Amino acid sequence: MDEAKGARRNGDGRRTRDEILTYAVQLASREGLEALTIGRLAEALHLSKSGLFAHFGSKEGLQLAVLERASEVFGERVLRVGRSFSGGLERLIAFLEAWLAYVEARDFQGGCFFASASAEFDGRPGPVRDALVRLAGSWIAALEAESRKAIAHGDLSSDVDIAQLVFEMHALVQEANWAMQLLGDARSLGRARAAVRARVAHAATPKGRASLVRIGTSIVSDVRAARRAGQASIAPHAAVQVQG
Amino acid sequence: MDEAKGARRNGDGRRTRDEILTYAVQLASREGLEALTIGRLAEALHLSKSGLFAHFGSKEGLQLAVLERASEVFGERVLRVGRSFSGGLERLIAFLEAWLAYVEARDFQGGCFFASASAEFDGRPGPVRDALVRLAGSWIAALEAESRKAIAHGDLSSDVDIAQLVFEMHALVQEANWAMQLLGDARSLGRARAAVRARVAHAATPKGRASLVRIGTSIVSDVRAARRAGQASIAPHAAVQVQG
Repeated sequence: MDEAKGARRNGDGRRTRDEILTYAVQLASREGLEALTIGRLAEALHLSKSGLFAHFGSKEGLQLAVLERASEVFGERVLRVGRSFSGGLERLIAFLEAWLAYVEARDFQGGCFFASASAEFDGRPGPVRDALVRLAGSWIAALEAESRKAIAHGDLSSDVDIAQLVFEMHALVQEANWAMQLLGDARSLGRARAAVRARVAHAATPKGRASLVRIGTSIVSDVRAARRAGQASIAPHAAVQVQG
Repeated sequence: MDEAKGARRNGDGRRTRDEILTYAVQLASREGLEALTIGRLAEALHLSKSGLFAHFGSKEGLQLAVLERASEVFGERVLRVGRSFSGGLERLIAFLEAWLAYVEARDFQGGCFFASASAEFDGRPGPVRDALVRLAGSWIAALEAESRKAIAHGDLSSDVDIAQLVFEMHALVQEANWAMQLLGDARSLGRARAAVRARVAHAATPKGRASLVRIGTSIVSDVRAARRAGQASIAPHAAVQVQG
Protein backbone atom coordinates (compact mmCIF):
# COMPACT_ATOMS: atom_id res chain seq x y z
CA MET A 1 0.00 0.00 0.00
CA ASP A 2 2.82 2.37 0.88
CA GLU A 3 4.43 1.47 -2.44
CA ALA A 4 1.26 2.44 -4.32
CA LYS A 5 0.91 5.69 -2.40
CA GLY A 6 4.56 6.50 -3.07
CA ALA A 7 4.16 5.81 -6.78
CA ARG A 8 1.05 8.01 -6.97
CA ARG A 9 2.75 10.95 -5.24
CA ASN A 10 5.84 10.49 -7.33
CA GLY A 11 3.86 11.25 -10.49
CA ASP A 12 5.44 14.69 -10.75
CA GLY A 13 9.00 13.83 -9.73
CA ARG A 14 10.48 17.30 -9.35
CA ARG A 15 7.68 18.79 -7.34
CA THR A 16 7.64 15.82 -5.01
CA ARG A 17 11.39 16.11 -4.45
CA ASP A 18 10.86 19.76 -3.48
CA GLU A 19 8.01 18.83 -1.15
CA ILE A 20 10.04 16.07 0.43
CA LEU A 21 12.98 18.38 1.05
CA THR A 22 10.76 21.14 2.46
CA TYR A 23 9.50 18.63 4.99
CA ALA A 24 12.82 16.86 5.57
CA VAL A 25 14.74 20.04 6.34
CA GLN A 26 12.32 20.91 9.16
CA LEU A 27 12.30 17.33 10.45
CA ALA A 28 16.12 17.33 10.50
CA SER A 29 16.14 20.71 12.21
CA ARG A 30 13.98 19.31 15.03
CA GLU A 31 15.39 15.79 15.37
CA GLY A 32 18.92 16.08 13.95
CA LEU A 33 20.42 15.31 10.56
CA GLU A 34 21.69 11.93 11.71
CA ALA A 35 18.17 10.85 12.71
CA LEU A 36 17.05 11.67 9.16
CA THR A 37 17.06 8.24 7.56
CA ILE A 38 15.18 7.24 4.42
CA GLY A 39 13.09 4.93 6.61
CA ARG A 40 12.20 7.70 9.10
CA LEU A 41 11.28 10.08 6.30
CA ALA A 42 9.25 7.45 4.43
CA GLU A 43 7.29 6.76 7.61
CA ALA A 44 6.66 10.46 8.33
CA LEU A 45 5.54 11.20 4.76
CA HIS A 46 3.75 7.89 4.08
CA LEU A 47 5.98 7.40 1.05
CA SER A 48 7.69 4.24 -0.09
CA LYS A 49 11.30 3.72 0.85
CA SER A 50 12.02 2.69 -2.74
CA GLY A 51 10.61 6.00 -4.03
CA LEU A 52 12.84 7.92 -1.63
CA PHE A 53 15.85 5.83 -2.62
CA ALA A 54 15.12 6.75 -6.24
CA HIS A 55 15.31 10.44 -5.27
CA PHE A 56 18.32 10.44 -2.96
CA GLY A 57 20.19 7.16 -3.43
CA SER A 58 21.27 6.80 0.19
CA LYS A 59 20.94 8.27 3.67
CA GLU A 60 24.01 10.40 2.95
CA GLY A 61 22.55 11.55 -0.36
CA LEU A 62 19.41 12.60 1.53
CA GLN A 63 21.44 14.41 4.20
CA LEU A 64 23.44 16.29 1.56
CA ALA A 65 20.26 17.26 -0.31
CA VAL A 66 18.72 18.51 2.95
CA LEU A 67 21.86 20.47 3.73
CA GLU A 68 21.74 22.05 0.27
CA ARG A 69 18.10 23.00 0.84
CA ALA A 70 18.97 24.45 4.25
CA SER A 71 21.72 26.54 2.66
CA GLU A 72 19.21 27.82 0.07
CA VAL A 73 16.95 28.94 2.93
CA PHE A 74 19.88 30.64 4.65
CA GLY A 75 20.80 32.22 1.32
CA GLU A 76 17.28 33.61 0.83
CA ARG A 77 16.68 34.75 4.40
CA VAL A 78 20.14 36.03 5.33
CA LEU A 79 22.52 36.51 2.39
CA ARG A 80 19.98 37.90 -0.08
CA VAL A 81 18.43 40.16 2.55
CA GLY A 82 21.87 41.50 3.53
CA ARG A 83 22.92 42.02 -0.09
CA SER A 84 20.01 44.42 -0.62
CA PHE A 85 21.99 46.90 1.55
CA SER A 86 25.07 48.92 0.47
CA GLY A 87 28.35 47.01 0.60
CA GLY A 88 30.65 47.67 3.53
CA LEU A 89 29.61 48.74 7.03
CA GLU A 90 25.88 48.89 6.30
CA ARG A 91 25.80 45.43 4.74
CA LEU A 92 27.92 44.03 7.56
CA ILE A 93 25.32 45.23 10.09
CA ALA A 94 22.50 44.08 7.77
CA PHE A 95 23.99 40.57 7.50
CA LEU A 96 24.10 40.28 11.28
CA GLU A 97 20.59 41.70 11.68
CA ALA A 98 19.25 39.32 9.03
CA TRP A 99 20.95 36.45 10.84
CA LEU A 100 19.37 37.54 14.14
CA ALA A 101 15.98 37.86 12.42
CA TYR A 102 16.35 34.31 11.05
CA VAL A 103 17.15 33.06 14.58
CA GLU A 104 14.23 34.99 16.05
CA ALA A 105 11.73 33.88 13.39
CA ARG A 106 12.86 30.26 13.72
CA ASP A 107 13.09 29.85 9.96
CA PHE A 108 14.08 26.36 10.97
CA GLN A 109 11.87 24.91 13.69
CA GLY A 110 14.90 23.60 15.59
CA GLY A 111 16.82 26.90 15.45
CA CYS A 112 19.82 27.64 13.26
CA PHE A 113 20.16 24.53 11.10
CA PHE A 114 23.92 24.87 10.78
CA ALA A 115 24.57 25.32 14.50
CA SER A 116 22.73 22.05 15.23
CA ALA A 117 24.26 20.18 12.31
CA SER A 118 27.77 21.39 13.22
CA ALA A 119 27.46 20.10 16.76
CA GLU A 120 26.17 16.81 15.39
CA PHE A 121 28.72 16.27 12.60
CA ASP A 122 31.89 17.99 13.80
CA GLY A 123 33.23 14.62 14.93
CA ARG A 124 31.98 12.58 11.95
CA PRO A 125 34.39 12.87 9.00
CA GLY A 126 32.75 12.61 5.58
CA PRO A 127 30.93 14.58 2.90
CA VAL A 128 28.28 16.02 5.28
CA ARG A 129 30.93 17.41 7.61
CA ASP A 130 32.92 18.71 4.62
CA ALA A 131 29.85 20.54 3.33
CA LEU A 132 29.25 22.10 6.76
CA VAL A 133 32.86 23.29 6.95
CA ARG A 134 32.55 24.79 3.47
CA LEU A 135 29.26 26.56 4.30
CA ALA A 136 30.56 27.95 7.61
CA GLY A 137 33.73 29.10 5.86
CA SER A 138 31.86 30.92 3.12
CA TRP A 139 29.60 32.70 5.63
CA ILE A 140 32.63 33.82 7.64
CA ALA A 141 34.30 34.90 4.38
CA ALA A 142 31.23 36.98 3.45
CA LEU A 143 31.36 38.78 6.83
CA GLU A 144 35.10 39.35 6.42
CA ALA A 145 34.64 40.70 2.87
CA GLU A 146 32.16 43.35 4.08
CA SER A 147 34.52 44.24 6.94
CA ARG A 148 37.35 44.74 4.43
CA LYS A 149 35.09 46.94 2.28
CA ALA A 150 34.24 48.95 5.40
CA ILE A 151 37.97 49.53 5.93
CA ALA A 152 38.40 50.51 2.24
CA HIS A 153 35.50 52.98 2.61
CA GLY A 154 37.12 54.48 5.70
CA ASP A 155 34.37 53.28 8.06
CA LEU A 156 36.49 50.79 10.05
CA SER A 157 40.03 51.52 11.23
CA SER A 158 42.73 50.21 8.91
CA ASP A 159 44.41 48.40 11.82
CA VAL A 160 41.34 46.30 12.70
CA ASP A 161 42.04 42.56 12.96
CA ILE A 162 39.24 41.38 10.68
CA ALA A 163 39.40 37.70 11.64
CA GLN A 164 39.15 38.71 15.31
CA LEU A 165 36.25 41.08 14.68
CA VAL A 166 34.28 38.49 12.70
CA PHE A 167 35.06 35.77 15.26
CA GLU A 168 33.43 37.92 17.94
CA MET A 169 30.38 38.94 15.91
CA HIS A 170 29.78 35.37 14.75
CA ALA A 171 30.08 34.23 18.39
CA LEU A 172 27.39 36.67 19.51
CA VAL A 173 24.73 35.53 17.05
CA GLN A 174 25.51 31.85 17.62
CA GLU A 175 25.13 32.49 21.36
CA ALA A 176 21.77 34.19 20.79
CA ASN A 177 20.62 31.09 18.91
CA TRP A 178 21.91 28.82 21.69
CA ALA A 179 20.17 30.84 24.42
CA MET A 180 16.94 31.02 22.40
CA GLN A 181 16.86 27.29 21.68
CA LEU A 182 18.03 25.85 25.00
CA LEU A 183 16.97 28.48 27.52
CA GLY A 184 14.09 30.03 25.55
CA ASP A 185 15.67 33.38 26.37
CA ALA A 186 14.51 35.92 23.79
CA ARG A 187 16.49 38.69 25.55
CA SER A 188 19.56 37.09 24.01
CA LEU A 189 18.68 38.65 20.64
CA GLY A 190 18.87 42.16 22.07
CA ARG A 191 22.06 41.28 23.93
CA ALA A 192 23.71 40.04 20.75
CA ARG A 193 22.54 43.14 18.86
CA ALA A 194 23.87 45.53 21.55
CA ALA A 195 27.22 43.74 21.70
CA VAL A 196 27.61 43.68 17.90
CA ARG A 197 26.95 47.42 17.74
CA ALA A 198 29.38 48.17 20.58
CA ARG A 199 32.07 46.00 19.00
CA VAL A 200 31.67 47.56 15.56
CA ALA A 201 31.63 51.07 17.06
CA HIS A 202 34.88 50.24 18.85
CA ALA A 203 36.48 49.24 15.53
CA ALA A 204 35.03 52.20 13.61
CA THR A 205 36.64 55.46 12.48
CA PRO A 206 34.89 58.74 13.36
CA LYS A 207 33.30 58.56 9.85
CA GLY A 208 32.20 54.98 10.57
CA ARG A 209 30.70 55.96 13.93
CA ALA A 210 28.71 58.67 12.17
CA SER A 211 27.51 56.02 9.69
CA LEU A 212 26.47 53.78 12.61
CA VAL A 213 24.40 56.61 14.07
CA ARG A 214 22.76 57.10 10.65
CA ILE A 215 22.12 53.34 10.30
CA GLY A 216 20.74 53.45 13.84
CA THR A 217 17.96 51.08 14.74
CA SER A 218 16.00 51.67 11.51
CA ILE A 219 18.03 48.89 9.90
CA VAL A 220 16.23 46.40 12.15
CA SER A 221 12.88 47.23 10.53
CA ASP A 222 14.50 47.63 7.08
CA VAL A 223 15.89 44.10 7.37
CA ARG A 224 12.46 42.81 8.40
CA ALA A 225 10.89 44.54 5.40
CA ALA A 226 13.52 43.02 3.10
CA ARG A 227 12.76 39.59 4.59
CA ARG A 228 9.03 40.04 3.95
CA ALA A 229 9.68 41.17 0.36
CA GLY A 230 11.90 38.13 -0.16
CA GLN A 231 9.37 35.77 1.39
CA ALA A 232 6.60 37.18 -0.84
CA SER A 233 8.71 36.48 -3.91
CA ILE A 234 9.52 32.94 -2.84
CA ALA A 235 6.18 32.11 -1.23
CA PRO A 236 4.80 29.79 -3.95
CA HIS A 237 7.82 27.57 -3.40
CA ALA A 238 8.27 27.94 0.35
CA ALA A 239 4.58 27.58 1.14
CA VAL A 240 4.49 24.00 -0.11
CA GLN A 241 3.58 21.87 2.89
CA VAL A 242 3.89 18.13 2.87
CA GLN A 243 1.60 16.51 5.39
CA GLY A 244 3.55 14.66 8.08
CA MET B 1 28.55 -15.60 25.53
CA ASP B 2 27.93 -11.90 25.91
CA GLU B 3 25.72 -12.68 28.89
CA ALA B 4 28.53 -14.62 30.57
CA LYS B 5 31.09 -11.91 29.86
CA GLY B 6 28.69 -9.27 31.19
CA ALA B 7 28.10 -11.27 34.36
CA ARG B 8 31.84 -11.75 34.90
CA ARG B 9 32.60 -8.04 34.54
CA ASN B 10 29.65 -7.18 36.73
CA GLY B 11 31.27 -8.93 39.69
CA ASP B 12 32.20 -5.60 41.27
CA GLY B 13 29.04 -3.63 40.53
CA ARG B 14 30.14 -0.15 41.53
CA ARG B 15 33.48 -0.22 39.82
CA THR B 16 31.90 -1.49 36.64
CA ARG B 17 29.31 1.28 36.69
CA ASP B 18 32.16 3.82 36.95
CA GLU B 19 34.02 2.13 34.11
CA ILE B 20 30.93 2.02 31.97
CA LEU B 21 30.23 5.71 32.53
CA THR B 22 33.85 6.67 31.85
CA TYR B 23 33.54 4.96 28.49
CA ALA B 24 29.96 6.05 27.77
CA VAL B 25 30.62 9.74 28.34
CA GLN B 26 33.36 9.73 25.68
CA LEU B 27 31.24 7.66 23.31
CA ALA B 28 28.35 10.12 23.73
CA SER B 29 30.70 13.05 23.24
CA ARG B 30 31.81 11.64 19.88
CA GLU B 31 28.53 10.21 18.57
CA GLY B 32 25.87 12.17 20.43
CA LEU B 33 23.81 11.49 23.53
CA GLU B 34 20.82 10.32 21.50
CA ALA B 35 22.93 7.66 19.77
CA LEU B 36 23.85 6.33 23.22
CA THR B 37 21.46 3.44 23.58
CA ILE B 38 21.86 0.51 25.93
CA GLY B 39 22.25 -1.71 22.86
CA ARG B 40 25.00 0.47 21.35
CA LEU B 41 26.88 0.60 24.64
CA ALA B 42 26.51 -3.13 25.25
CA GLU B 43 27.97 -3.80 21.80
CA ALA B 44 30.89 -1.40 22.28
CA LEU B 45 31.77 -2.79 25.73
CA HIS B 46 30.93 -6.45 25.03
CA LEU B 47 28.56 -6.39 27.97
CA SER B 48 25.10 -7.86 28.19
CA LYS B 49 22.13 -5.60 27.61
CA SER B 50 20.49 -7.07 30.70
CA GLY B 51 23.50 -6.09 32.83
CA LEU B 52 23.32 -2.53 31.51
CA PHE B 53 19.59 -2.41 32.12
CA ALA B 54 20.28 -3.43 35.72
CA HIS B 55 22.61 -0.43 36.07
CA PHE B 56 20.60 2.27 34.29
CA GLY B 57 17.03 1.03 33.86
CA SER B 58 16.44 2.67 30.49
CA LYS B 59 18.05 4.63 27.70
CA GLU B 60 17.00 7.83 29.45
CA GLY B 61 18.43 6.58 32.75
CA LEU B 62 21.72 5.94 30.95
CA GLN B 63 21.66 9.39 29.31
CA LEU B 64 21.00 11.09 32.66
CA ALA B 65 23.81 9.10 34.34
CA VAL B 66 26.19 10.09 31.51
CA LEU B 67 25.16 13.72 31.82
CA GLU B 68 25.82 13.59 35.55
CA ARG B 69 29.28 12.11 34.91
CA ALA B 70 29.96 14.80 32.29
CA SER B 71 29.00 17.46 34.81
CA GLU B 72 31.40 15.91 37.35
CA VAL B 73 34.20 16.18 34.77
CA PHE B 74 33.26 19.83 34.09
CA GLY B 75 33.16 20.39 37.85
CA GLU B 76 36.65 18.94 38.32
CA ARG B 77 38.29 20.55 35.31
CA VAL B 78 36.60 23.94 35.28
CA LEU B 79 34.72 24.80 38.48
CA ARG B 80 37.23 23.34 40.95
CA VAL B 81 40.18 24.80 39.06
CA GLY B 82 38.54 28.25 38.99
CA ARG B 83 37.64 28.06 42.68
CA SER B 84 41.30 27.70 43.61
CA PHE B 85 41.66 31.41 42.68
CA SER B 86 40.47 34.43 44.72
CA GLY B 87 36.77 35.22 44.37
CA GLY B 88 35.82 38.14 42.13
CA LEU B 89 37.74 39.38 39.10
CA GLU B 90 40.56 36.86 39.36
CA ARG B 91 38.24 33.88 39.67
CA LEU B 92 36.08 35.20 36.83
CA ILE B 93 39.13 35.21 34.54
CA ALA B 94 40.25 31.85 35.97
CA PHE B 95 36.84 30.27 35.25
CA LEU B 96 37.04 31.41 31.63
CA GLU B 97 40.67 30.29 31.30
CA ALA B 98 39.83 26.90 32.82
CA TRP B 99 36.93 26.58 30.37
CA LEU B 100 39.24 27.42 27.47
CA ALA B 101 41.81 24.91 28.75
CA TYR B 102 39.08 22.24 28.89
CA VAL B 103 38.12 23.05 25.29
CA GLU B 104 41.77 23.02 24.19
CA ALA B 105 42.63 19.77 25.99
CA ARG B 106 39.49 18.09 24.61
CA ASP B 107 38.58 16.70 28.02
CA PHE B 108 35.72 15.24 26.02
CA GLN B 109 36.82 13.73 22.72
CA GLY B 110 33.93 15.38 20.87
CA GLY B 111 34.56 18.84 22.36
CA CYS B 112 32.47 20.54 25.04
CA PHE B 113 29.95 17.90 26.08
CA PHE B 114 27.29 20.42 26.96
CA ALA B 115 27.53 22.38 23.72
CA SER B 116 26.93 19.18 21.72
CA ALA B 117 24.22 17.88 24.01
CA SER B 118 22.44 21.27 24.01
CA ALA B 119 22.29 21.36 20.22
CA GLU B 120 21.00 17.80 20.25
CA PHE B 121 18.38 18.13 23.00
CA ASP B 122 17.22 21.73 22.84
CA GLY B 123 14.19 20.62 20.82
CA ARG B 124 13.46 17.41 22.79
CA PRO B 125 11.44 18.16 25.93
CA GLY B 126 12.10 15.82 28.85
CA PRO B 127 14.40 15.13 31.78
CA VAL B 128 17.62 15.24 29.71
CA ARG B 129 16.80 18.67 28.30
CA ASP B 130 15.73 19.84 31.79
CA ALA B 131 19.07 18.72 33.23
CA LEU B 132 20.95 20.57 30.46
CA VAL B 133 18.99 23.75 31.14
CA ARG B 134 19.76 23.45 34.85
CA LEU B 135 23.48 22.85 34.25
CA ALA B 136 23.79 25.74 31.78
CA GLY B 137 21.91 27.99 34.18
CA SER B 138 24.15 27.14 37.11
CA TRP B 139 27.31 27.76 35.08
CA ILE B 140 25.98 31.16 33.96
CA ALA B 141 25.00 31.88 37.57
CA ALA B 142 28.54 31.06 38.74
CA LEU B 143 30.02 33.51 36.20
CA GLU B 144 27.49 36.14 37.25
CA ALA B 145 28.26 35.62 40.94
CA GLU B 146 31.98 36.28 40.39
CA SER B 147 31.11 39.35 38.31
CA ARG B 148 28.97 40.66 41.16
CA LYS B 149 31.81 40.04 43.62
CA ALA B 150 34.12 41.93 41.27
CA ILE B 151 31.74 44.89 41.44
CA ALA B 152 31.59 44.61 45.25
CA HIS B 153 35.41 44.61 45.37
CA GLY B 154 35.52 47.73 43.19
CA ASP B 155 37.13 45.91 40.25
CA LEU B 156 34.20 46.19 37.83
CA SER B 157 32.13 49.36 37.42
CA SER B 158 28.95 49.40 39.46
CA ASP B 159 26.90 50.19 36.35
CA VAL B 160 27.98 47.07 34.46
CA ASP B 161 25.09 45.00 33.06
CA ILE B 162 26.18 41.63 34.45
CA ALA B 163 23.83 39.50 32.35
CA GLN B 164 25.11 41.26 29.22
CA LEU B 165 28.76 40.84 30.24
CA VAL B 166 28.35 37.13 31.00
CA PHE B 167 26.34 36.59 27.79
CA GLU B 168 29.28 37.94 25.80
CA MET B 169 32.00 36.01 27.64
CA HIS B 170 30.02 32.77 27.48
CA ALA B 171 29.53 33.38 23.73
CA LEU B 172 33.28 33.73 23.15
CA VAL B 173 34.26 30.43 24.75
CA GLN B 174 31.40 28.56 23.09
CA GLU B 175 32.56 30.01 19.75
CA ALA B 176 36.12 28.86 20.43
CA ASN B 177 34.78 25.35 21.01
CA TRP B 178 32.69 25.51 17.81
CA ALA B 179 35.66 26.72 15.72
CA MET B 180 37.98 24.10 17.26
CA GLN B 181 35.56 21.24 16.68
CA LEU B 182 34.16 22.08 13.26
CA LEU B 183 36.95 24.08 11.64
CA GLY B 184 39.89 22.65 13.62
CA ASP B 185 40.93 26.26 14.17
CA ALA B 186 43.13 26.43 17.29
CA ARG B 187 43.60 30.20 16.80
CA SER B 188 40.05 30.53 18.09
CA LEU B 189 41.30 29.93 21.66
CA GLY B 190 43.57 32.96 21.51
CA ARG B 191 40.82 35.01 19.89
CA ALA B 192 38.37 34.14 22.65
CA ARG B 193 41.01 34.92 25.31
CA ALA B 194 41.85 38.31 23.76
CA ALA B 195 38.19 39.25 23.43
CA VAL B 196 37.38 38.20 27.02
CA ARG B 197 40.25 40.32 28.34
CA ALA B 198 39.24 43.34 26.22
CA ARG B 199 35.62 43.02 27.31
CA VAL B 200 36.48 42.71 31.01
CA ALA B 201 38.94 45.62 30.76
CA HIS B 202 36.16 47.70 29.21
CA ALA B 203 33.89 46.93 32.18
CA ALA B 204 36.65 47.43 34.78
CA THR B 205 37.36 50.34 37.12
CA PRO B 206 40.91 51.79 37.19
CA LYS B 207 41.55 49.49 40.18
CA GLY B 208 40.20 46.53 38.18
CA ARG B 209 42.38 47.40 35.19
CA ALA B 210 45.41 47.40 37.48
CA SER B 211 44.31 43.96 38.76
CA LEU B 212 44.03 42.72 35.17
CA VAL B 213 47.59 43.87 34.48
CA ARG B 214 48.71 42.00 37.62
CA ILE B 215 46.75 38.87 36.63
CA GLY B 216 48.31 39.26 33.18
CA THR B 217 49.03 36.12 31.21
CA SER B 218 50.49 34.22 34.17
CA ILE B 219 46.97 33.05 35.01
CA VAL B 220 47.03 30.92 31.85
CA SER B 221 49.91 28.82 33.22
CA ASP B 222 48.51 28.98 36.79
CA VAL B 223 45.24 27.51 35.52
CA ARG B 224 47.13 24.77 33.70
CA ALA B 225 49.06 23.97 36.89
CA ALA B 226 45.80 23.82 38.86
CA ARG B 227 44.38 21.47 36.23
CA ARG B 228 47.41 19.18 36.51
CA ALA B 229 47.19 19.17 40.30
CA GLY B 230 43.49 18.33 40.06
CA GLN B 231 44.10 15.57 37.52
CA ALA B 232 46.81 14.04 39.70
CA SER B 233 44.41 13.87 42.63
CA ILE B 234 41.65 12.29 40.53
CA ALA B 235 43.87 10.14 38.34
CA PRO B 236 43.12 6.72 39.87
CA HIS B 237 39.48 7.27 39.04
CA ALA B 238 39.82 9.14 35.74
CA ALA B 239 42.50 6.83 34.39
CA VAL B 240 40.15 3.85 34.38
CA GLN B 241 39.82 2.75 30.77
CA VAL B 242 37.18 0.36 29.58
CA GLN B 243 38.18 -1.38 26.39
CA GLY B 244 35.80 -0.51 23.51
